[in-house]
Amino acid sequence: MDDAAKQRFTLISENLAEFLNPEIIEAILAEGRNPNIYWGTATTGKPHCGYFVPAVKIAQLLAAGCDVTILLADIHGFLDNLKAPLELVASRAEYYRWIIKAMLESVGVKTDKLKFVLGSSYQKGPEYVMDVYRLASLVSEHDAKKAGAEVVKQTGNAPLSGLLYPILQVLDEEHLNCDAQFGGVDQRKLFTAAKEWLPKIGYRQRAHLMNPMVPGLQGSKMSSSDEDSKIDLLDAPEAVAKKVRKAEAIPKVPEGNGMLALAEYVLLPVSALKSEDGKKAELKIERPDGQEPLVYTDIKQMNEDYRNDVLTPQLLKACVSEGLNKLMKPIREAFEASKEWQDITLKAYPPPPKKQKKVKDKGSRYPGAAPAKNGEAVPTEAAAQPEQAMGKDLPVR
Amino acid sequence: MDDAAKQRFTLISENLAEFLNPEIIEAILAEGRNPNIYWGTATTGKPHCGYFVPAVKIAQLLAAGCDVTILLADIHGFLDNLKAPLELVASRAEYYRWIIKAMLESVGVKTDKLKFVLGSSYQKGPEYVMDVYRLASLVSEHDAKKAGAEVVKQTGNAPLSGLLYPILQVLDEEHLNCDAQFGGVDQRKLFTAAKEWLPKIGYRQRAHLMNPMVPGLQGSKMSSSDEDSKIDLLDAPEAVAKKVRKAEAIPKVPEGNGMLALAEYVLLPVSALKSEDGKKAELKIERPDGQEPLVYTDIKQMNEDYRNDVLTPQLLKACVSEGLNKLMKPIREAFEASKEWQDITLKAYPPPPKKQKKVKDKGSRYPGAAPAKNGEAVPTEAAAQPEQAMGKDLPVR
Repeated sequence: MDDAAKQRFTLISENLAEFLNPEIIEAILAEGRNPNIYWGTATTGKPHCGYFVPAVKIAQLLAAGCDVTILLADIHGFLDNLKAPLELVASRAEYYRWIIKAMLESVGVKTDKLKFVLGSSYQKGPEYVMDVYRLASLVSEHDAKKAGAEVVKQTGNAPLSGLLYPILQVLDEEHLNCDAQFGGVDQRKLFTAAKEWLPKIGYRQRAHLMNPMVPGLQGSKMSSSDEDSKIDLLDAPEAVAKKVRKAEAIPKVPEGNGMLALAEYVLLPVSALKSEDGKKAELKIERPDGQEPLVYTDIKQMNEDYRNDVLTPQLLKACVSEGLNKLMKPIREAFEASKEWQDITLKAYPPPPKKQKKVKDKGSRYPGAAPAKNGEAVPTEAAAQPEQAMGKDLPVR
Repeated sequence: MDDAAKQRFTLISENLAEFLNPEIIEAILAEGRNPNIYWGTATTGKPHCGYFVPAVKIAQLLAAGCDVTILLADIHGFLDNLKAPLELVASRAEYYRWIIKAMLESVGVKTDKLKFVLGSSYQKGPEYVMDVYRLASLVSEHDAKKAGAEVVKQTGNAPLSGLLYPILQVLDEEHLNCDAQFGGVDQRKLFTAAKEWLPKIGYRQRAHLMNPMVPGLQGSKMSSSDEDSKIDLLDAPEAVAKKVRKAEAIPKVPEGNGMLALAEYVLLPVSALKSEDGKKAELKIERPDGQEPLVYTDIKQMNEDYRNDVLTPQLLKACVSEGLNKLMKPIREAFEASKEWQDITLKAYPPPPKKQKKVKDKGSRYPGAAPAKNGEAVPTEAAAQPEQAMGKDLPVR
């Protein structure tokens, strides 16, 4: 590899917890080509701030000149809960497309090499389906279960689809024509299965890039179903500040601290991407009472200062609030500027039906009666609760 | 139901081991309509004489005015052994079509209400596939395994396809638009699963007709992989007679006797179908030494006579040989008359490659040397052994 290729490889590898078969990507870079890397997300919930972690990695991949394919796994979203009608899931996939694009633009990378693909656009096609049948006849139940162990809910009465999902996700690598798949380190078993399974049906092995699991604001992995640890990407600045203030941050213990994780995997890399040469990370934290600001270029010094209480939870929280709000401002602005996006949001996440107040029948002639119609909103069956359709048994990748 | 409907229902029900939800069929008959009944067969092996048992039931269904759909499950055949190329399986499906049609014609029923459908013609389509995904997300691994317990090989390392097959077979009922599925009683768990599963995705419950399991010539279920118990449908009359002579027949023990089973489920019903009113079964067995012939109109008297050694194994075997050969004669004739069928047979069951004799290199000038080419057939990779592609893990329905 020449220097340019090496630099690209460094950026592609940065911050990964693990990188399986990097030689596949190195070879492509050495030839001066652009690796095609795919990331999949089931469009079941609503992307929150935790999505900045994969988004920043994707931004780095784009900055390194990779072609990036984002699979909006709508069929999975639909299947996860058949009570959520197909249109709802289709609207959510649209919402995901809008917000992911806005996130990447707010990070400051060009998105012309970014491609969104709807799962339903090929996962019902005859070639894909024959591959599902073929692979299912070569992979044992045991191996399918093992591959999905960390991403599919394991219960005594688990649906068969849980064994089918690993098959689909592995085939997606081939049918999206990618050179590597990117995901969280929780996908590890699935990724090693992909390495083993694809050659069984004559397809080539792919590389696999894995992000570490990042603690959320409450110290555990940020989850879309845990309200307290969740900052919506369209939350107002004050709401962000409030949620960050309430976040767990044990003084002097950097381990498991969600704010330090955000600094490491979002704020520092974003500052680098936005710097002049695209490489210089810098995080500046102002301090009160005329003290010098704290300036960090990597996470190591931040962790050390946090352990020594130089970087206090209060300072860190202020820094994270500000950093997030800076990233979210262009997202909110893009949302406010787009009637189309706003409309799809209403369709994707219809407001819960208001409770119908029991209106006492006072007759229509009581003082102040409305002139014929009841002003109360009536709940409709169609307005499904967003939470109903949220990922349960599904691998949210 | 009027008398005509009742007669139709009697013929539909005859000789079944079990009939689930007969009221579905009764209602259709009461309206004067024709039930659509489907039978599926994986096109993995080569149909043998044992196929006369379902064929006779199908003939009765046709005689009762049912529309009959025969599913040639080619995808299953292909998947069962990926080493068998797709063209081989496609040729086998063609062979099945020829031979099943010839069997039904030899039984003497009209086949204008008979339809063959290739699995691959709809099992790769988007509607079908979405139903596979939907049903897989509603059926548990445990229930899928239970449904396939008797038709899918259960091993510790069973392929995932074994859990998928029950899903497909259940969906076939809907996508073939049938009112009932017919199969062996070994399909019982699968059929009860179908009753339960289809309504889960909004489809109607079907009726299920089950033939008993019939002992083969060696006393066990006739199997296409057990050479000794197998009479090929194109075997010459002498070969049939020889195989029947060698068949197991414990004197005075009618239970588990494959010849009595053939009499009950093939020869007697065929004689009825061929009789003037379509109802009068009669089997006449000539005896040596000027004794009166034995004449049977049902299996009960045959079993009793066999137990009392009036109907000896020798007499029974002669009767079965003659009966089978009578049924097979028009099949052989049809085969000999059709170049198309003969060609497809060669493609479907290519002769095993001859062993290449090691020709000693005597130089090209030894006395009698061929003028340049080697006369020995050379084995080609393409000529797969028929046995390689035979059903193992597959539900041969």
